[in-house]
Amino acid sequence: MLRDLKEEVLEANLLLVKEGLVRLTWGNVSGIDRASGLFVIKPSGVAYEDLTVDSLVVLDLDGRVVEGPLRPSSDTPTHRVLYREFPEIGGVTHTHSVNATMFSQAGVELPCFGTTHADHFHGTVPVVRELTPEEVAEDYETNTGNAIAAAFRERGIDPIAMPACFQKYHAPFTWGKSALDSVKNSVALEVCAGMAMGMWRLRPETAPLPGHLLDKHYLRKHGPGAYYGQGKV
Amino acid sequence: MLRDLKEEVLEANLLLVKEGLVRLTWGNVSGIDRASGLFVIKPSGVAYEDLTVDSLVVLDLDGRVVEGPLRPSSDTPTHRVLYREFPEIGGVTHTHSVNATMFSQAGVELPCFGTTHADHFHGTVPVVRELTPEEVAEDYETNTGNAIAAAFRERGIDPIAMPACFQKYHAPFTWGKSALDSVKNSVALEVCAGMAMGMWRLRPETAPLPGHLLDKHYLRKHGPGAYYGQGKV
Amino acid sequence: MLRDLKEEVLEANLLLVKEGLVRLTWGNVSGIDRASGLFVIKPSGVAYEDLTVDSLVVLDLDGRVVEGPLRPSSDTPTHRVLYREFPEIGGVTHTHSVNATMFSQAGVELPCFGTTHADHFHGTVPVVRELTPEEVAEDYETNTGNAIAAAFRERGIDPIAMPACFQKYHAPFTWGKSALDSVKNSVALEVCAGMAMGMWRLRPETAPLPGHLLDKHYLRKHGPGAYYGQGKV
Amino acid sequence: MLRDLKEEVLEANLLLVKEGLVRLTWGNVSGIDRASGLFVIKPSGVAYEDLTVDSLVVLDLDGRVVEGPLRPSSDTPTHRVLYREFPEIGGVTHTHSVNATMFSQAGVELPCFGTTHADHFHGTVPVVRELTPEEVAEDYETNTGNAIAAAFRERGIDPIAMPACFQKYHAPFTWGKSALDSVKNSVALEVCAGMAMGMWRLRPETAPLPGHLLDKHYLRKHGPGAYYGQGKV
Repeated sequence: MLRDLKEEVLEANLLLVKEGLVRLTWGNVSGIDRASGLFVIKPSGVAYEDLTVDSLVVLDLDGRVVEGPLRPSSDTPTHRVLYREFPEIGGVTHTHSVNATMFSQAGVELPCFGTTHADHFHGTVPVVRELTPEEVAEDYETNTGNAIAAAFRERGIDPIAMPACFQKYHAPFTWGKSALDSVKNSVALEVCAGMAMGMWRLRPETAPLPGHLLDKHYLRKHGPGAYYGQGKV
Repeated sequence: MLRDLKEEVLEANLLLVKEGLVRLTWGNVSGIDRASGLFVIKPSGVAYEDLTVDSLVVLDLDGRVVEGPLRPSSDTPTHRVLYREFPEIGGVTHTHSVNATMFSQAGVELPCFGTTHADHFHGTVPVVRELTPEEVAEDYETNTGNAIAAAFRERGIDPIAMPACFQKYHAPFTWGKSALDSVKNSVALEVCAGMAMGMWRLRPETAPLPGHLLDKHYLRKHGPGAYYGQGKV
Repeated sequence: MLRDLKEEVLEANLLLVKEGLVRLTWGNVSGIDRASGLFVIKPSGVAYEDLTVDSLVVLDLDGRVVEGPLRPSSDTPTHRVLYREFPEIGGVTHTHSVNATMFSQAGVELPCFGTTHADHFHGTVPVVRELTPEEVAEDYETNTGNAIAAAFRERGIDPIAMPACFQKYHAPFTWGKSALDSVKNSVALEVCAGMAMGMWRLRPETAPLPGHLLDKHYLRKHGPGAYYGQGKV
Repeated sequence: MLRDLKEEVLEANLLLVKEGLVRLTWGNVSGIDRASGLFVIKPSGVAYEDLTVDSLVVLDLDGRVVEGPLRPSSDTPTHRVLYREFPEIGGVTHTHSVNATMFSQAGVELPCFGTTHADHFHGTVPVVRELTPEEVAEDYETNTGNAIAAAFRERGIDPIAMPACFQKYHAPFTWGKSALDSVKNSVALEVCAGMAMGMWRLRPETAPLPGHLLDKHYLRKHGPGAYYGQGKV
């Protein structure tokens, strides 16, 4: 079932390790098949070196396990909510990569300071609030997804142009057109967060990227006029 | 003798290298078989790439070598005291990993700033004082263990919920349910120490994680209601 | 066509990855054959692990693709302008390596603080201004090259003695006698940028390298009296 | 000739790369055979991956090449002076490792802040002055060695207990009982320099290690009462 998607989700999870975004088992990637409404995700607490296509878990958008012998990632309900709320996305990544996690823990937004950022994120990466005691008690992981979706809705942020957020006290979530694309956004977020920290040390009053360069770099890679790459994703 | 334990202790020592926590020969992991009261530890000054199951040293809790052709790690008496004083632990790790060693050398405690920390340590990681000239002269390594045990006892800290400390001017010690678990706690300590340093630069007045999130993340992974992973350690 | 040059350009692109200067597909190296006026460059958006000699693109100095089944790097017009404007150079490298990109984004020049820098760059590495909205709209990548060439011309900087610059809000460009040499200059730029950041923290009032040491180290490796290496490049 | 020494010197040079202390060709290790008065060193500008036992250069203490088809490292005269001036040492390492190079460029001494440092260096790592224009013009590399030897002599520093220094504006030199031992001291210097920088950020007023701990750790590994390791070097 969903063999191609599983292979991409496996590759995307292993890319997390290769790119140095995860230590131990702190991270997970999923990908969705919009036609069937099923998504594939990493099992919980399994070492990356032991991951295989057959160890991945398939669920429907109500959170029911459809296939797979193992428990899905404990963060699965968050992925599920993001797929429901952001109907155009095809993959979700969650890591505790250190730079992006520092921004999350500190609750600091990441302005766009350069073209590396503009290539992936069209503007300032937002912070999403932490959950209340009641939300934690009720359903921690589902309410994490709800808090993200509500923040984007309330602030009028387009999740396609801004495929990332920092959850306060926790860590980043990113998404994208596919599982692999969501991992690439995690890499970009980690690198840009680290560069912003260095820049604030180098020149504390650094200004964000001017709008015409933000638009140029974002649109060079995304949208109908894109001319980066070989014409496929 | 204790073949399975030796294999785990070997794997745990090699994981130190793989996770980037040791340079040269600066680190050691041990694991204990509570039934026999024997523990297995790395030999002293042996390069990690030369380690084999048969080069590991087996000792009893009085510090007598029971098996193995080489001298045990010079830190062995510290491990021995920790096994005696903390009867529920199954493994001990000592490294000079850089971030955690900075906290140790500077004598700075590590507050819980986020869920990565809360997944492993239930609260602030404590500093244990350096030894006096008399303690050093008498028995440096045994008294190191005594100082750690005394600090936890006097401050009423549960070593199961707080499996780590920074020894002033020296470096961290961690422990856990098993040798591998103690290494995972060393990884978490190193990462969280580094993230705290970054956060203090990013937002110096950052507040610790609220109690309801600390409890949620710690208990999601530990204790009777844990639901992270596949139901085994 | 140009088999030897293609092999060097492939090796130079892979060296970027090995030296940790690129993540994902953020970087490109080219090399030129001055006899034919043709240059070889990485294709756009292709993963480094999939690069082969045959996937490289050959262009002339008017920007026409002469050989290769794929689109050239989106930064190709910038390389082209540099080859036209700096007739003595043989290779060009563009990366988003983190330290050099921080200097670029912040618009901070890099003074020569030590002999590592002097071995590669004879003085302060300059910042080149960002493009105007009109320049972006007209031809972003060509005008990037024009801005670099104009900055060197107007400030009287010799591009052979200073084979690097930081483009404001964007990232570094380096060049050299060959494709491989331009990558080595990228490595040196990244290392020296990182060391300068550390030094400003360690001793904010640090003075630049005295002139007699700058000249000694630069000339030990470059020019007619060079005695570093085995007498070939 | 000197086959065993050459094999150790090759291994020691490759260890520099493995430990991340060198980029490109910025570093060199030598080892001496005191019986014959001959030393073995890396050739100049040769990539580490191309190094073989037969590419190493053998010289006498007057600087004459005795064996080897290639030019010796451009820093060879510095090694030669150190062997002459410090008759108890068996190996010398020079790198541009980033943390130690920052201390060198900034001219900042490294106090002993913890036991990792005390295991290798008995006290504060000194800075050696830069050369004058006359010294550079006369013989740069020989005078570099002379400046190091003079600094140790004038300040009464024992080069055995303090096998390292930072040369102002340049980079570190370390030495040791053997070629491999000198590389281990380079690793320790790099790690301790980095930890000191972090500690100054974490607690700017951090005090050095008390004398009884400095002596304990240094003597645990060095001298007649040493009990670290397996009783051989």
